[in-house]
Amino acid sequence: MHHPTNPIRPTIDLDATGKHHGFLRMPHSRNESAWGAVMIPVTVIANGDGPTALLTGANHGDEYEGPIALQALAHEIDPADVTGRIILIPYMNYPAFRAATRVSPIDQVNLNRAFPGRPDGTATQKIADYFNDVLVPMADIVLDYHSGGKTLDFLPFACAHYLDSRSQQEACVAAVTAFNAPYTLMLREIDNVGMYDTAVEAQGKVFVTTELGGGGTATARTARIARRGARNVLMHAGILRGTPEVGPTVLLDMPDDDCYHFATCEGLVEPLVDLGETVEKGAVIARIWPVDRTGLMPLDHVARRGGVLAARHFPGLVQTGDCLAVIATALHAEG
Amino acid sequence: MHHPTNPIRPTIDLDATGKHHGFLRMPHSRNESAWGAVMIPVTVIANGDGPTALLTGANHGDEYEGPIALQALAHEIDPADVTGRIILIPYMNYPAFRAATRVSPIDQVNLNRAFPGRPDGTATQKIADYFNDVLVPMADIVLDYHSGGKTLDFLPFACAHYLDSRSQQEACVAAVTAFNAPYTLMLREIDNVGMYDTAVEAQGKVFVTTELGGGGTATARTARIARRGARNVLMHAGILRGTPEVGPTVLLDMPDDDCYHFATCEGLVEPLVDLGETVEKGAVIARIWPVDRTGLMPLDHVARRGGVLAARHFPGLVQTGDCLAVIATALHAEG
Amino acid sequence: MHHPTNPIRPTIDLDATGKHHGFLRMPHSRNESAWGAVMIPVTVIANGDGPTALLTGANHGDEYEGPIALQALAHEIDPADVTGRIILIPYMNYPAFRAATRVSPIDQVNLNRAFPGRPDGTATQKIADYFNDVLVPMADIVLDYHSGGKTLDFLPFACAHYLDSRSQQEACVAAVTAFNAPYTLMLREIDNVGMYDTAVEAQGKVFVTTELGGGGTATARTARIARRGARNVLMHAGILRGTPEVGPTVLLDMPDDDCYHFATCEGLVEPLVDLGETVEKGAVIARIWPVDRTGLMPLDHVARRGGVLAARHFPGLVQTGDCLAVIATALHAEG
Amino acid sequence: MHHPTNPIRPTIDLDATGKHHGFLRMPHSRNESAWGAVMIPVTVIANGDGPTALLTGANHGDEYEGPIALQALAHEIDPADVTGRIILIPYMNYPAFRAATRVSPIDQVNLNRAFPGRPDGTATQKIADYFNDVLVPMADIVLDYHSGGKTLDFLPFACAHYLDSRSQQEACVAAVTAFNAPYTLMLREIDNVGMYDTAVEAQGKVFVTTELGGGGTATARTARIARRGARNVLMHAGILRGTPEVGPTVLLDMPDDDCYHFATCEGLVEPLVDLGETVEKGAVIARIWPVDRTGLMPLDHVARRGGVLAARHFPGLVQTGDCLAVIATALHAEG
Amino acid sequence: MHHPTNPIRPTIDLDATGKHHGFLRMPHSRNESAWGAVMIPVTVIANGDGPTALLTGANHGDEYEGPIALQALAHEIDPADVTGRIILIPYMNYPAFRAATRVSPIDQVNLNRAFPGRPDGTATQKIADYFNDVLVPMADIVLDYHSGGKTLDFLPFACAHYLDSRSQQEACVAAVTAFNAPYTLMLREIDNVGMYDTAVEAQGKVFVTTELGGGGTATARTARIARRGARNVLMHAGILRGTPEVGPTVLLDMPDDDCYHFATCEGLVEPLVDLGETVEKGAVIARIWPVDRTGLMPLDHVARRGGVLAARHFPGLVQTGDCLAVIATALHAEG
Amino acid sequence: MHHPTNPIRPTIDLDATGKHHGFLRMPHSRNESAWGAVMIPVTVIANGDGPTALLTGANHGDEYEGPIALQALAHEIDPADVTGRIILIPYMNYPAFRAATRVSPIDQVNLNRAFPGRPDGTATQKIADYFNDVLVPMADIVLDYHSGGKTLDFLPFACAHYLDSRSQQEACVAAVTAFNAPYTLMLREIDNVGMYDTAVEAQGKVFVTTELGGGGTATARTARIARRGARNVLMHAGILRGTPEVGPTVLLDMPDDDCYHFATCEGLVEPLVDLGETVEKGAVIARIWPVDRTGLMPLDHVARRGGVLAARHFPGLVQTGDCLAVIATALHAEG
Repeated sequence: MHHPTNPIRPTIDLDATGKHHGFLRMPHSRNESAWGAVMIPVTVIANGDGPTALLTGANHGDEYEGPIALQALAHEIDPADVTGRIILIPYMNYPAFRAATRVSPIDQVNLNRAFPGRPDGTATQKIADYFNDVLVPMADIVLDYHSGGKTLDFLPFACAHYLDSRSQQEACVAAVTAFNAPYTLMLREIDNVGMYDTAVEAQGKVFVTTELGGGGTATARTARIARRGARNVLMHAGILRGTPEVGPTVLLDMPDDDCYHFATCEGLVEPLVDLGETVEKGAVIARIWPVDRTGLMPLDHVARRGGVLAARHFPGLVQTGDCLAVIATALHAEG
Repeated sequence: MHHPTNPIRPTIDLDATGKHHGFLRMPHSRNESAWGAVMIPVTVIANGDGPTALLTGANHGDEYEGPIALQALAHEIDPADVTGRIILIPYMNYPAFRAATRVSPIDQVNLNRAFPGRPDGTATQKIADYFNDVLVPMADIVLDYHSGGKTLDFLPFACAHYLDSRSQQEACVAAVTAFNAPYTLMLREIDNVGMYDTAVEAQGKVFVTTELGGGGTATARTARIARRGARNVLMHAGILRGTPEVGPTVLLDMPDDDCYHFATCEGLVEPLVDLGETVEKGAVIARIWPVDRTGLMPLDHVARRGGVLAARHFPGLVQTGDCLAVIATALHAEG
Repeated sequence: MHHPTNPIRPTIDLDATGKHHGFLRMPHSRNESAWGAVMIPVTVIANGDGPTALLTGANHGDEYEGPIALQALAHEIDPADVTGRIILIPYMNYPAFRAATRVSPIDQVNLNRAFPGRPDGTATQKIADYFNDVLVPMADIVLDYHSGGKTLDFLPFACAHYLDSRSQQEACVAAVTAFNAPYTLMLREIDNVGMYDTAVEAQGKVFVTTELGGGGTATARTARIARRGARNVLMHAGILRGTPEVGPTVLLDMPDDDCYHFATCEGLVEPLVDLGETVEKGAVIARIWPVDRTGLMPLDHVARRGGVLAARHFPGLVQTGDCLAVIATALHAEG
Repeated sequence: MHHPTNPIRPTIDLDATGKHHGFLRMPHSRNESAWGAVMIPVTVIANGDGPTALLTGANHGDEYEGPIALQALAHEIDPADVTGRIILIPYMNYPAFRAATRVSPIDQVNLNRAFPGRPDGTATQKIADYFNDVLVPMADIVLDYHSGGKTLDFLPFACAHYLDSRSQQEACVAAVTAFNAPYTLMLREIDNVGMYDTAVEAQGKVFVTTELGGGGTATARTARIARRGARNVLMHAGILRGTPEVGPTVLLDMPDDDCYHFATCEGLVEPLVDLGETVEKGAVIARIWPVDRTGLMPLDHVARRGGVLAARHFPGLVQTGDCLAVIATALHAEG
Repeated sequence: MHHPTNPIRPTIDLDATGKHHGFLRMPHSRNESAWGAVMIPVTVIANGDGPTALLTGANHGDEYEGPIALQALAHEIDPADVTGRIILIPYMNYPAFRAATRVSPIDQVNLNRAFPGRPDGTATQKIADYFNDVLVPMADIVLDYHSGGKTLDFLPFACAHYLDSRSQQEACVAAVTAFNAPYTLMLREIDNVGMYDTAVEAQGKVFVTTELGGGGTATARTARIARRGARNVLMHAGILRGTPEVGPTVLLDMPDDDCYHFATCEGLVEPLVDLGETVEKGAVIARIWPVDRTGLMPLDHVARRGGVLAARHFPGLVQTGDCLAVIATALHAEG
Repeated sequence: MHHPTNPIRPTIDLDATGKHHGFLRMPHSRNESAWGAVMIPVTVIANGDGPTALLTGANHGDEYEGPIALQALAHEIDPADVTGRIILIPYMNYPAFRAATRVSPIDQVNLNRAFPGRPDGTATQKIADYFNDVLVPMADIVLDYHSGGKTLDFLPFACAHYLDSRSQQEACVAAVTAFNAPYTLMLREIDNVGMYDTAVEAQGKVFVTTELGGGGTATARTARIARRGARNVLMHAGILRGTPEVGPTVLLDMPDDDCYHFATCEGLVEPLVDLGETVEKGAVIARIWPVDRTGLMPLDHVARRGGVLAARHFPGLVQTGDCLAVIATALHAEG
């Protein structure tokens, strides 16, 4: 059977020396443009022999630390400081980024559950396939930025996964440690089917991911963490000249499902604990009030375990089943 | 000429003693319900002779500290602790609150620019008229909660306006001081036409307003400020028994238009200063990066004056003309 | 000051003898048509000297008995059988009729609350003004069809209002009686501001209105009632030759506000009484079940008075404040 | 190849004794909730050894008799009266039920054409897969409620299909007879690909389905039929203690394609026959009038066969190709 | 009574010498930006003493010749070549221009029927008021570009109106002649209420308007006509140095309502005459075919008068009441 | 495995002699019609023994020359003039045609990239499958009309593809030549996966396609070209009696990718060359101006090769990546 070809093409030579700005061009015929295209900005900075790093933001379109850091790096890095190659794609799911939405407005697909993708699939599936088949194979180390988006907020952490390959896992942990976010997490994903993380790790690459904040905004602090982390990782990989900036980091652990707290009714959220605060098992972490009347009792949601509040539902209103809070264990501070 | 009558009716007796929960019922014929209504929840707690306080949240539907505090007060206040009357309306622009939007989804009107309202106008104009003609005249003191909503974020402050009547202004300042937010602000509104504030003050009432956070969320901290502030104001007014909780507050001043900074292009915001941080005149407070390509310089936005960052644009993307930042002068801490 | 002119113009001569089909043409510049128009179909059947009857359907765009009856009459009536003039407008709020919605999709305005209208207002206000200033003054007798639309269902009745003029009221009652629906109602509208009814009655005309069913459909039975009623009224007025068909009718009374029952919560409606059934005061007429979980009790809604169920909420789901039921008193059968 | 796992999990133990209310939790990451879920309410009532019955409503989200009956049963059935297990899912396609639409607002998929489903498909495909692979295999007898929804109206009937297995068919007929709706139908589905019915029957289960009314509402009468029918079926299956209520039923037959009548033009429907009325072959059952002008003839639609009107198009307007009417043969009354 | 103030403010000094680019800033609080603004680009080129010309495009947001010409002039004109002042506003109804729609996406208002506007009205009414009260009074001569937009197509003409003041009319005709479009038209507007034209002329200004093409595009030819016409008018007014380019023009006349041809049914348009072609009275100018079936006859639309086709309906589908064609009389060529 | 069956059925006998009008009926259950259908109009004209021609329009729903020509042929062709069979389907993607959009409003699928289709797929995939499996196999010669739709405009040409089979290619060229459009093109499609063209050619059929204009309109000229071309092809194939009308045609060549010019930024398009005009390599063919401010330089887009402008972007605004222009080589005129 005929194997379909991914129609995405770069407008620049991904192998050229120096710094080049261009696009990944995906033809996209639609009502608004019969012969139009989705144009995903890309910058490649290459110099001499060395490893390739692939850095991506806006895997989800409403997460901003990655886009900021990668736009800045694309502007600031001098090819003379590079040994190897840096591929910067600030807006990975570009249609979602322009729409400021988590999933693509074209096909409503979540890019981070679309891997390994399909070359003849929907727009988002084509993007996934192009990364999986073309870009990731070029890379030695991959950094993918995440934050909580418009509906979650996180303590800023970088993260590595428990992997079957001990050597790959150690390389990942070293890179995550190099990133040096205020918090550092080891995670075993329960449902990792379709994730970019899984696709990258399956190709044996060194992989770093993050959650750096959320709410659909970036702060000066989280943007600085993102910029510094990328530079640190690139220096760690020997691609960028310079000395990493390091500070303390707190190790977090999320050992089991009891970390996750879901809303059991819809309503108005009154949070009782803020990110980074410590909570005892059984304490009320949030109350949910009715949205249609006064005079009723709120529904208390209690901590299923003690620990530090590592993530929380962001919008003022909540739906049944939404993730209301994540309580992690803070192991100790490093650095 | 016939003077039209506002069709809104309370389902409870607003003058009854005790604690009563009900609705302000506004008939609203529409495609989804020929003989339907907008039902705005209301609680009245009355006991003995004393002043009336009118407390409102969700004047803008995506601001959550007011709704939380007023739902909690409606549930918690014991009529035996009251001397006078407390009218609590957690969701003033109820259709906007349910839609989690600033303006009403019914008529796209901003309630806080719709005063004094019209009894035969659109849904939002009717709500404004009902407050202006029925509820505000009942009140001696009025507290209206605001936050930044989904698109702005503020340092938490309570606020009074410069008024022509010195005695009224002093009463307002005393109440705002009693609220005891972390920041306290005196403000002369430039464009106050249509505001609830203006309508209330024009009736000679004591008026307190706030900006307690933003982003379309509430934190545990801002929710606590909101709850404590309302109790403090009610105690200050002699309506609620108890001793106010007080802490330090920082006085803020926004003397002129140079406080306000607007985006001069659209793009991706990289903030360089966070809320509460101090900035020098001429410093870059934010960079705006292009959303359609890499390799271009960002557009720097610089501080037109020195001071403390009191408000900022919240979403990751910005449009030309959006308010990017407000820089205030921190006078000194009180308390 | 300049008095604006209503831009609506008929494409046929409303005074010509014979049967003529045409349109009321309202210019309507919009994105979809720069020089477009709303074209409201109209038929005029005139012969000799005699009174003028104005018959209208689709005042609300999701009510179908009127449109069916008037399309049929426009097709069937022979001018030779007419003495005077019959103006038939099956789709009064034509944009709403085409959209199958209660209110106009152009301006979201309810035509039956837009009277007396504005010649320079929105599309619906212009239609109201044209009827008020041009068509109603031409008429001696006016019949306006209503049903419950998509969200209410009614026992089929014709209706007259209590009026200040005894002679006008008697003329209206005689016409309503001539209509001979299965139920006949005398009504004093509480909130009649903006109604077509009020505008017509204020000009001293004989006025008949109906509620003939609902749910956004017509049945064979209700369509027959509508057709027969119009013919009966036209014969009663001496405009159409022929002998009225008459059958029994039940007189209904809705003496006070206790007739109306509103939903006090949102949810899934379990009706316990059907239209036309008798109910005792205090009996449960409907239960409302939660839509988000099982295992909770429903909220019972009880009859505030005894009587016959004359109207009910139609959709399976209900919002707080929707009209759930109307209980009328059946006086006795006539005919 | 890796076989994907359905991510839906119950929040209660489906095997526990007693009555338990919970949810089928389907993770659903989306713009509105990054880590959100679809929460389908479920009640399980189990006691002792005996067969399992699976009862479902809102397979189509705008059909209400099933949801009402199952909410009531979940509330009312005493586990002490049960021998075996009853699984009640009032809102099978929960997103569609909340949106009051036939198909899911998430993926626009018709659940009743999505079987056997896909564990890694769209939201509706996942629901189908979970029923097909997890819930149906647990059951001995399955009852799935249907009505006409917002666009069709039916005579109330319960229905069994002609099956290849004579014994399975006899068991189904016995259960359908036990349901004891006013009408009872034997049906050979022409296009049964993707139906829940087909999936259940293919697993050898006893299956009962219904059409109990329509229009997007439920009446007191049809809700009573639904409640009584479920109790009767559960008693028939030996799961619920008690004596079935029985009344007369009319046997209907739809032997061939001539039963179905489709609109051959778009327009305004004037029905000439109501549900349950008898019609002769060749008689006009409905006229379709133009929606854009008066003075034209309607397009008559005639009966292709004689019989009783068993179903009809519900909305006032019709599109070309819509099912306008179904004429069945009433065999005789039983009971 | 308090006279409300228009909140629009220019960000540049409209009286400064030289060339300055900025915005008309209209505060616009909305869900997407609590403290946002509509930013209408403006360029002022001033030098020495002389008259002021006000040039505007995108009064309707889907008309492109004006925006192109004015962007080009803002870029190209050297202040040294100017005597007086040129105010260039390429995108008058800026929200409509960005949405590529005729009317504003904010309030659905047609700017060219919103004059004289309201300072406290909707967004479009505020724009109208600002032009009427601030900008037009500054001007001696006003040029407003129009084309057919997405739904009409025109022969390219410039146009003056018959005015009560003979001297004003002569000045207008002289300016229109100076514009030197391929066609030149004198017009008496029938329904000129609310037009910018009327508002400008009422202030005694010299006014030139155009229709230069349509369909929602601009061609190289029509863009050249627009650029040349503006330069010619500015030279004619003595504001811009240089020699006008002149070519032949054809005088058109539209003496009566018979020029306008409206569609009498909806459907698929088969045009039989193209723009600029001559047609005899009674000839078929277009056929309208049904969109729902084959085999029916089309509805022929015939010329009510002879002449040249000056405008035509653009989209392939047409609605009843749309302007299908305008037939003008070509008087003779000038130049 | 079970092979699913395409549910589309014709309402007429496609093999009957004479002229018959009907529909291709595709069942389509949806919120608006539970048992509804998509009804695609079809006309078959058959007489005696001879080849079958299949003619289609509205493969893309916003292209109008094909629908006009085929509606006219369905009305005009006398079966007595036919030897063989003509199948006319003016609105191939009927839902898109009714919505006036390129792709289907039901599933957002581009029919011309959906081949060979799926019998159990989405609505558009089912249409593709029905053509691929049922209609194309019936045909000897296939003519599929295209134009530029709402977003492109073309010089009017008919087109054949370079094929592997020399004899098939020659037959196609002969038919394209017979069509006799003003321009004639030989094309090797780069990305022909999913096209109807490819599916038809793969079955060995003679295939003619066209691009006859664009912009979402048809002119009298392009409609005439379309009608004449179909008649010429049918005569060429020996199916229709008569003498072809022939005129000159210009041969076009598009030898390589340099023909295609894409926008490298978004903005307002100022075209400098019109369709059919000659351009030199390196000349500016269009300038793109910013849409948010004045005073910046436009971005010039230059010709990558010399030739004649054969296609151009139509809307006034453009997005990055849209096809701005196609420059072809005009070989010489024939005929």
